[in-house]
Parts: sequence; structure tokens; C-alpha cells
Amino acid sequence: MKIYFAGSIRGGREDSVLYQQIIEYLKTFGEVLTEHVGDPNLTSLGDDGSTDKYIHDRDLEWLLNSDVLVAEVTTVSMGVGYEIGRAVESGKKVLCLFRPELGKNLSAMIAGCKDLKLVRYGNLEEVKLLISGFLNS
Amino acid sequence: MKIYFAGSIRGGREDSVLYQQIIEYLKTFGEVLTEHVGDPNLTSLGDDGSTDKYIHDRDLEWLLNSDVLVAEVTTVSMGVGYEIGRAVESGKKVLCLFRPELGKNLSAMIAGCKDLKLVRYGNLEEVKLLISGFLNS
Repeated sequence: MKIYFAGSIRGGREDSVLYQQIIEYLKTFGEVLTEHVGDPNLTSLGDDGSTDKYIHDRDLEWLLNSDVLVAEVTTVSMGVGYEIGRAVESGKKVLCLFRPELGKNLSAMIAGCKDLKLVRYGNLEEVKLLISGFLNS
Repeated sequence: MKIYFAGSIRGGREDSVLYQQIIEYLKTFGEVLTEHVGDPNLTSLGDDGSTDKYIHDRDLEWLLNSDVLVAEVTTVSMGVGYEIGRAVESGKKVLCLFRPELGKNLSAMIAGCKDLKLVRYGNLEEVKLLISGFLNS
């Protein structure tokens, strides 16, 4: 199984350690194409490619070749929203992971979309169970 | 011409007055389907519909029926990213407006996408000229 993991880069890196933990777990189900998203050395400057066009085209090719998109949506990110939009519009299987916290308002365009699966979680153990349930279904 | 204007709601309302000014200008070219995005009474709680599903489905129908998407992308927003992704994937004409400021890092997924037109501007008069150039081309 090819898994595209999406998490905030330029929108903010406060969850990068969590992304890394989720990616490690996803790797027990298949190949994670975007392992760099969990790299703690990658800052919100987002220098994970030589140009923005290179990053976009590489990531989009990975996205369109993946079997499933798993997106952590707690940190607001334009790029994660874009990836979810392209994946939904192209009919791909999408799982969104949201950690409800004070001051975090998930977009209605994600929370209200019936063509993706949204789950809410509190900690790593909970999110692992939810991911496992989704990927094994 | 049917125009879908996208701007941040739950991602933050600091640019709502600017959205209203852009919408007023867009109305000189056609019908703006999402005039509520510029309503200064609409807060980041995003209560512009009874449920998230209602908001998503209403906005998506407007988006897919529009001739063009004009998105203000300076304030990071998951919903705006999602709308751009769906519009690009469905082959729609997309204009993104970005106001470079200290601490604002535009996503590589927007800045590096060749299937949309991205313009950078500093003030309302500049953005009006750029919009006019795009919509009249």
C-alpha cells in the first residue's frame, strides 16, 4: 500500500514530532511516500526541495500515485487543504486526523465533507487505533 | 460571469475588510457567489450555515458552478486550500492573491502550481489592476 501522509510545513511545525510518530506507525501498513513531513529538521521555511514548482510537482505525483491520503489537520495549513481537495476531487480514499483543542476550529470544508473520513483523537494510542481501523476496512 | 471568492473564515478573520473590498470590486465583473466571506460580522467561529455539511455542500455547489475561483491566500486557511485543490483538479480557472509580509510563508503547493495564476500585491489598488488583467484576459 502506498500512503501519502500530509501535515503542515509552512503553516507551522509545532506537531512535527507527532507527524513522525504517525508516519512510523503508517510504515507498518505500507510505503509512506512523504516521510520528510515528519523530519524535525524541516522548518516552516519549507526548504524540502530546490523550488516551489519542484516541491509541488513531486508531491502531486506522489499524491496521485498513492492508494490513500492520511492527513493530520490540527495545524491549519493551506497545502494540506489543497492536497485533501485534489485527493477528494480525484476520488481517492482520504482519512483526516483532528485533535480537538481550545482555539482549534476545523474548517467546515473538511468537517462537512462526506467524501472523506474524519476522526477526532486525543493521543498517539488513540490515533493508532483509528488509523488501523480505517486502513484495515 | 459567476465568481467564487475564497478567503479565510475559521483560519482567521484579520483580512475580512480587505475581502469585502475585493468582493465589491469583483461584483463589477459579474456575480459573486460567496459574498458572505467579506461580512465583517462573520467571525472565525464560522457560523455561516446550520451545519458543517450544509456549509460544505452549499459552497462546493457554488464552486463547481462558478466560472472562476479568486482566492485571497495571505491568511493560512485549510478551507481555502481545499477549494483551490478541488478547483484545480476539476480544471477550473483559478487566481490566487498573495500579499507578501514578514512571517507569511505561502505554501509551495500554491506557489509552485502551474495550473493556477498567482499574483503578489501590496495594496487594494494594485490587486484591482491584477484582478482586472486576469478577468479580462
